[in-house]
Amino acid sequence: MNKESYEQSYLYRLRHSAAHLMAQALTELYPGVKLAIGPPIENGFYYDVETTEALKEEDFAAIEKRMKELSKLDQRIERKVAKSRDEAREIVLKECTLGQGEAVAEYKLQLLDAVPEGEDISFYDQQRTDREGTFHRFIDLCRGPHVDSTKEIKHFKLMSLAGAYWRGDVKNKQLTRIYGTAFESQEELEQYLHNLEEARRRDHRILGKELGLFMFSPRVGPGLALWLPKGAQLRETMIEFLRDEQLKRGYEPVITPQIASIKLYEKSGHILTFREKMFPFMEDEEKETYILKPMNCPFHIEIYASQIRSYRDLPIRYAEFGTVHRYEQSGEVTGILRARGFTQDDAHLFVTPDQLLDEFIGVVDIMNTVLRKLGLTDFRARLGTKDPKSDKYVGHDDNWVAATNAIMEACDKMGMEYEISPGDAAFYGPKLDLIIKDALGRDWQMGTVQVDYNLPERFGLEYIAEDGKPHRPIMIHRAPFGSLERMIGLLTEQYAGAFPLWLAPVQVAVLPIADRHVDHAMDLASQLKGYSGDLGTKLRVSVDDRRETLGKKIRENQLQKIPYMLILGDKDIENGTVGVRSREEGGKDLGAMTLQAFVEMVEKEMD
Amino acid sequence: MNKESYEQSYLYRLRHSAAHLMAQALTELYPGVKLAIGPPIENGFYYDVETTEALKEEDFAAIEKRMKELSKLDQRIERKVAKSRDEAREIVLKECTLGQGEAVAEYKLQLLDAVPEGEDISFYDQQRTDREGTFHRFIDLCRGPHVDSTKEIKHFKLMSLAGAYWRGDVKNKQLTRIYGTAFESQEELEQYLHNLEEARRRDHRILGKELGLFMFSPRVGPGLALWLPKGAQLRETMIEFLRDEQLKRGYEPVITPQIASIKLYEKSGHILTFREKMFPFMEDEEKETYILKPMNCPFHIEIYASQIRSYRDLPIRYAEFGTVHRYEQSGEVTGILRARGFTQDDAHLFVTPDQLLDEFIGVVDIMNTVLRKLGLTDFRARLGTKDPKSDKYVGHDDNWVAATNAIMEACDKMGMEYEISPGDAAFYGPKLDLIIKDALGRDWQMGTVQVDYNLPERFGLEYIAEDGKPHRPIMIHRAPFGSLERMIGLLTEQYAGAFPLWLAPVQVAVLPIADRHVDHAMDLASQLKGYSGDLGTKLRVSVDDRRETLGKKIRENQLQKIPYMLILGDKDIENGTVGVRSREEGGKDLGAMTLQAFVEMVEKEMD
Repeated sequence: MNKESYEQSYLYRLRHSAAHLMAQALTELYPGVKLAIGPPIENGFYYDVETTEALKEEDFAAIEKRMKELSKLDQRIERKVAKSRDEAREIVLKECTLGQGEAVAEYKLQLLDAVPEGEDISFYDQQRTDREGTFHRFIDLCRGPHVDSTKEIKHFKLMSLAGAYWRGDVKNKQLTRIYGTAFESQEELEQYLHNLEEARRRDHRILGKELGLFMFSPRVGPGLALWLPKGAQLRETMIEFLRDEQLKRGYEPVITPQIASIKLYEKSGHILTFREKMFPFMEDEEKETYILKPMNCPFHIEIYASQIRSYRDLPIRYAEFGTVHRYEQSGEVTGILRARGFTQDDAHLFVTPDQLLDEFIGVVDIMNTVLRKLGLTDFRARLGTKDPKSDKYVGHDDNWVAATNAIMEACDKMGMEYEISPGDAAFYGPKLDLIIKDALGRDWQMGTVQVDYNLPERFGLEYIAEDGKPHRPIMIHRAPFGSLERMIGLLTEQYAGAFPLWLAPVQVAVLPIADRHVDHAMDLASQLKGYSGDLGTKLRVSVDDRRETLGKKIRENQLQKIPYMLILGDKDIENGTVGVRSREEGGKDLGAMTLQAFVEMVEKEMD
Repeated sequence: MNKESYEQSYLYRLRHSAAHLMAQALTELYPGVKLAIGPPIENGFYYDVETTEALKEEDFAAIEKRMKELSKLDQRIERKVAKSRDEAREIVLKECTLGQGEAVAEYKLQLLDAVPEGEDISFYDQQRTDREGTFHRFIDLCRGPHVDSTKEIKHFKLMSLAGAYWRGDVKNKQLTRIYGTAFESQEELEQYLHNLEEARRRDHRILGKELGLFMFSPRVGPGLALWLPKGAQLRETMIEFLRDEQLKRGYEPVITPQIASIKLYEKSGHILTFREKMFPFMEDEEKETYILKPMNCPFHIEIYASQIRSYRDLPIRYAEFGTVHRYEQSGEVTGILRARGFTQDDAHLFVTPDQLLDEFIGVVDIMNTVLRKLGLTDFRARLGTKDPKSDKYVGHDDNWVAATNAIMEACDKMGMEYEISPGDAAFYGPKLDLIIKDALGRDWQMGTVQVDYNLPERFGLEYIAEDGKPHRPIMIHRAPFGSLERMIGLLTEQYAGAFPLWLAPVQVAVLPIADRHVDHAMDLASQLKGYSGDLGTKLRVSVDDRRETLGKKIRENQLQKIPYMLILGDKDIENGTVGVRSREEGGKDLGAMTLQAFVEMVEKEMD
């Protein structure tokens, strides 16, 4: 459900009404509570309130209980429009305060003042007397809409507390924000809570630490990951896979600097369009100003432009695992999913107009291959086109039409469905994004392909065509992973750290049972690594030679999600076998086998 | 020969006298020439002069001819000391000007004024009448010393012209500097000229461009190389080799950010000791200041410090191909040999005192392995120790003694000779540098190993020893290549671009004779790359499918120094063979062979 259709939905109204229901409970349980705003949001709702005593999460049960009681009263939720601003003021001061004194109306009065002249001033009113004869009422200044009765609000849960400044301004008073969620059915609520719990369990920031993938340090700075040995290995495995795939498809590797003179970004235009995402400049008053690289494209263009190119040389496909930096707000930084420094699996293709379609298909094909190899099979495509109303785009209309058609034709040829998202194009051309649905049903925008007529124009790029004259090439920008950081973040959550065998930083752990088995374990590891013997494999292997019980070793290697454990004791050495355990099903015992049989099994699994 | 012993040598005096001889020739050939200074320098000598007409290199032959004539006159070169400053002034104005007028003494008078009070003011005088009865004389204000007679100056050559400001000050007049060289024998002179020519032919900046290894761009900035496909491949091959070698030896890969908060470098102390080599800071007035990484060590230390370490975990060896930036003066930047951005094959070992000796040996061993693999077998070791007179060093004397002893003991154990260079230690500990002699006999300081007690101290690093108490580890810094850039620069010059087979960016070029052979050529290339068939190899292969004559293709692939060319025509296809040419001896024809036989040959060569 996209944002627009969500805001039109019953669920959206339901959550809005749940916010009111919570506010009603609060006014009863916390007399004198001042209400501010209470909107529905992406996954539920919240209400910002001011209480005399600090609210705690322990109070949620009581609030939810009262909400349930009030829900059952089947209060009709009725919209009332004030005839005048004065009448509205009366309602806020008298009816909305429910006899708690005018002070509680502090924020509502300010909200009322903010309602534009000429607009309806509406209230939503819910009231009923319960079986014990107690009268319940809640009336709130609100634009609505809402559901018809409180009894519809059955499947809800209060989630968390946070501080929130009135009107989002740090100079104002800090209120308490109570987050909750609501669904149409108990199953949906439970699924949501389960997913939340799963997401917590799979949180890449926690797993990244537990599995020794990466770390952060305050002395280095937010959003700048230090990759620990296992994480570095994981990156290397991904890079190796994609590099081989790219070489096969005629990409050529390039490596470009981390910084460039400001001149480069003046020429590319990024200094205008991308300024706020750039780190502060390195300014030398007497000399040149340098910029930490925010994107690789201008460098690849410099390489293209360093020679005269013929149509025979095209397509040229420059690929770089290029590290870039973006000065994200430190509050927006989220582990490695949204980092300040990250490495794109970037490539730029320079093509003739005749080649655009085939090359675009080729790019989508490699993206498909990559996602499937990573086990991410549930994805869809979104075509970002020009917003016809906006003027932020550059380039001729003809080019836009040609590029957009090429993308659509490529998708059709590949039998790939796509949705069209107007206004989602890059400022220099249309793009196709791949959106992955993960194991928890969450959407992730990952890989992207963009068609660009603008940068070739800005840099005056040319190739000599068959007619002997200079023509302008078209550029394709693409990144199948998006970035290594983001993809590893996603994969960590997707697999809850249990990476597929080919990708696992450590594929096999050898566990000698006692000290006397350690030498043999080392020898097996050396064979599995391909350093000795002739098993014909090259696995990533660790040896757990700590003086711990086998049980503890198994547990801990299991927690590290290592695909296979090879257990080695007297009997195994006698028989020339190893005891094999897989991480599946919490440590499935696959029995004893020879090393050769084990290698055949894992090689087959990786094929 | 080091600087000190060179300055004591006969050669140094000879070159100084050659400068005087050249000046004598100039005064005769260019009456009115004003002489400034004329010292011996590293590879010869120069004289700065001011002439009324601009000197050209075409004039060198005539000057050399006159020098030869003057040399043969066997003029005695006699030292004369003026009795007073006034007498010295008289000599400069009268005798030195040789009747050319006082104006020519302009610079010499200033030099005279600069002679410190109390110091001898000496002149060197050479005179003789030739057979035609012409009197020749040259007397110069000079500290000396010189050779005894001009006849000793036989093997010389004028090399080049340059502009030079009087006293090196841009505000002063620009003089003409004439560079020359002189040797004791004709063989030495010729060897030197040959080496110069060879160095020009091997210049990595020229070859780097011709072979498509790297480029620079003014929009990117000086010292910031953009690696072209072949250069990127070359880097990759070197990295892959060293990475495998390191994994085998228990190194663990890490990857750390390109930038860090200034806090990191305050903690490490680099902000004090390394400030002038850092790029301008990225300063955000409201937030944090960031620094472009000048060295990797503090990051590896952060990783070490992120966990409690036990003696059982040590040694820990973190390896990173880490890109760093140093703000070298743009005038000092030289291609990729001295760049502003470069990638170190860096590693830091954290060891207990007991492990220091073995680990140091291990590091020297890997450096040996690396240099031999690269074909750099002519190298020597230099132990940089503390200068006992300086106070720039940090750390306890005991540590210095222990570290220096460990290095010496390690070298002895390995049977590795070394020279000791007092004062050449890093400020935090002694180091061992490997100095390579290249094909032209030039010395290159490359790999380095350093023992460091200081950074572990500054960061308070610890490990829990067997006694259950925290102890301080010792760090070893090492880089076998030094940097990828510098090593590739050296290798390019060493091999004049004809890299060893295993390292060559393109190992095999397939040359179809006519268009009808192209498909077959593509198929062969695919097999050689390991993409099809079962040759059991994975070579880097290009196909030259241009519509050019075979002769032209051979010449051009030969210029690209590709180790093997496979020529493919009708007969080859019929016979199931390829015509093999090696780049040796200007394109040696190895005759027809099957692809399998070819692969066996190259695999053997790479073993």
